[in-house]
Amino acid sequence: MVMEQVSPTPDRIFEALWGHQRTAALKAGIDIELFTAIKEGKRQVSALAERCKATERGVRMLADYLTMLGFLRKTGNEYSLSSDSEVFLVTTSPAYVGGTLEFMLAPPLYDGFRRLTEAVRKGGTALDEQGTTAEEHPEWVTFARAMIPMMMAPAKWISNYLAAHQVKVDKVLDIAAGHGLFGIEIAKQFPQSTIVALDWPNVLTVAKEQAQTAGVQERYQWLPGNAFSVEYGKGYDVVLLTNFLHHFDPPTCEEILRKVHRALKENGRVVTVEFVPNEDRVSPASADFALVMLVTTPAGDAYTFPELNDMFTKAGFARSEIHEVPQSKEHVLVTYKT
Amino acid sequence: MVMEQVSPTPDRIFEALWGHQRTAALKAGIDIELFTAIKEGKRQVSALAERCKATERGVRMLADYLTMLGFLRKTGNEYSLSSDSEVFLVTTSPAYVGGTLEFMLAPPLYDGFRRLTEAVRKGGTALDEQGTTAEEHPEWVTFARAMIPMMMAPAKWISNYLAAHQVKVDKVLDIAAGHGLFGIEIAKQFPQSTIVALDWPNVLTVAKEQAQTAGVQERYQWLPGNAFSVEYGKGYDVVLLTNFLHHFDPPTCEEILRKVHRALKENGRVVTVEFVPNEDRVSPASADFALVMLVTTPAGDAYTFPELNDMFTKAGFARSEIHEVPQSKEHVLVTYKT
Repeated sequence: MVMEQVSPTPDRIFEALWGHQRTAALKAGIDIELFTAIKEGKRQVSALAERCKATERGVRMLADYLTMLGFLRKTGNEYSLSSDSEVFLVTTSPAYVGGTLEFMLAPPLYDGFRRLTEAVRKGGTALDEQGTTAEEHPEWVTFARAMIPMMMAPAKWISNYLAAHQVKVDKVLDIAAGHGLFGIEIAKQFPQSTIVALDWPNVLTVAKEQAQTAGVQERYQWLPGNAFSVEYGKGYDVVLLTNFLHHFDPPTCEEILRKVHRALKENGRVVTVEFVPNEDRVSPASADFALVMLVTTPAGDAYTFPELNDMFTKAGFARSEIHEVPQSKEHVLVTYKT
Repeated sequence: MVMEQVSPTPDRIFEALWGHQRTAALKAGIDIELFTAIKEGKRQVSALAERCKATERGVRMLADYLTMLGFLRKTGNEYSLSSDSEVFLVTTSPAYVGGTLEFMLAPPLYDGFRRLTEAVRKGGTALDEQGTTAEEHPEWVTFARAMIPMMMAPAKWISNYLAAHQVKVDKVLDIAAGHGLFGIEIAKQFPQSTIVALDWPNVLTVAKEQAQTAGVQERYQWLPGNAFSVEYGKGYDVVLLTNFLHHFDPPTCEEILRKVHRALKENGRVVTVEFVPNEDRVSPASADFALVMLVTTPAGDAYTFPELNDMFTKAGFARSEIHEVPQSKEHVLVTYKT
């Protein structure tokens, strides 16, 4: 038997060590609109510096580094875009992801990870008492806008699922509606439906804009406030709980679920969107979301399906199913009241 | 002809976006001594949390994330070390790199990269007027200690080179001596040599310690102060300029080189250690050092060999050679006065 001896190297360690430099370089490229400037035909440092309102020295050093990362190409003194950069990093591209990146690097996450050691010691966000779960946290307005491209796939999947399963959808409660996308897709799919959208008043303005753009604003009722204290009303066919439970500990989740249970019709369903790791908590790739919850919330988590199922059961629900969503790292749970 | 169509994905972009999280997780693991605790036989969250003075929730979330990055392994509820982590991340290991990582993530770099956009606009460090080139910057003491493991290879290479080429080495000037390693290796190799070590007084304490440990302290003369203003003296066979020039713009480098030229004997040599990119400035991998200079200095750079050669020529030197150094990302230049 031949065993290959691989001697250990610190390569992987230094790779992780420099991670923050890559993040910073990508962010700086987006901040000064370097990719957009190249798309416009500026290819040399002097023209780019003028267009990007930056110094030639700074642009040259940044562009060289971004070339080394594969976001740009360099031929002689001229830079060009890699195919990925052209599609995703140019502001005029329909698939531009700069808004999403901006949110992902907003203070709660970017500063929060700088204080990770503190969060590990404390067992929750080091930012302030409530982290991003604080009342009317201004970040959620940015978030609501930033998440739209990433939530398109699960939002469409849910409305198609409800239609395919001939679910009666007359009255829908969208808890922490955010951008409003989940309710809007349902409103488009089910012309007789009414959507009650709940969120902090500052965030609801985003959902209102989106509903207006989609032409479904007349089918909406607005419920501004806190999901824990606002009265939901009764008789819902479907309650949407999208990217909400992960912010809280299980007892708090159960509190919300009991409230949801009371608001649903007897044959109603909850549709939950979540990052759901396998029971080993280290797969699939989306399991890394747990650390984001450590950094940004006092007690949130990425819950496994058995854990979520247990919360629903304790709140009085009959059973839950879990579904994978193509083109999304998240799962959809459908939970039946009876 | 068959052309494979690869549709663009934002994967590489998100990979870079999350870079800062990886840096933070590695740092947190080192900060709480998680790797060392596992090496000591703690394998479950409860025992690790106690040993690491952290919460179980925090340790579990961090350890799962580090497992996903490949620094740990997880079997059931037990964590173990990957072979790289065992060698490089356990404090009791001779190859422990935690000190180096600590320096690499000290404020000038870690905070500096957070302000990269500003540095790109400004064309130099956004930290303060002089960045890390400020007089007696306290970071250099940490730096001097942190760099020892990484400078062993080039320091030994240089003393071996001088011996192999039968260079007369009676009097050596070590400019910005730092940890002192370069001078110390020469002192060990050439028992008749005297080393004059120049650095800020706070940094020289580190070189003094190291010289004492190596048993060569009696061969040393200490020259505390600033390399631009201190009088070097005369009659040196060799002047060491290790990791110094990259902090300054070419005119400032030439000013130092003219001073070095005057201090050298007629047949003396300068031995320079630098990150030297190819002329394309995007290769080899060490070319990324230029961005570190943008972030931490007002006007420093990673200079190409033609640029360095030009500075030496302008300062009156006859010619320069460049050498690769095994096990190092840096190059060594040997420059002849005549």
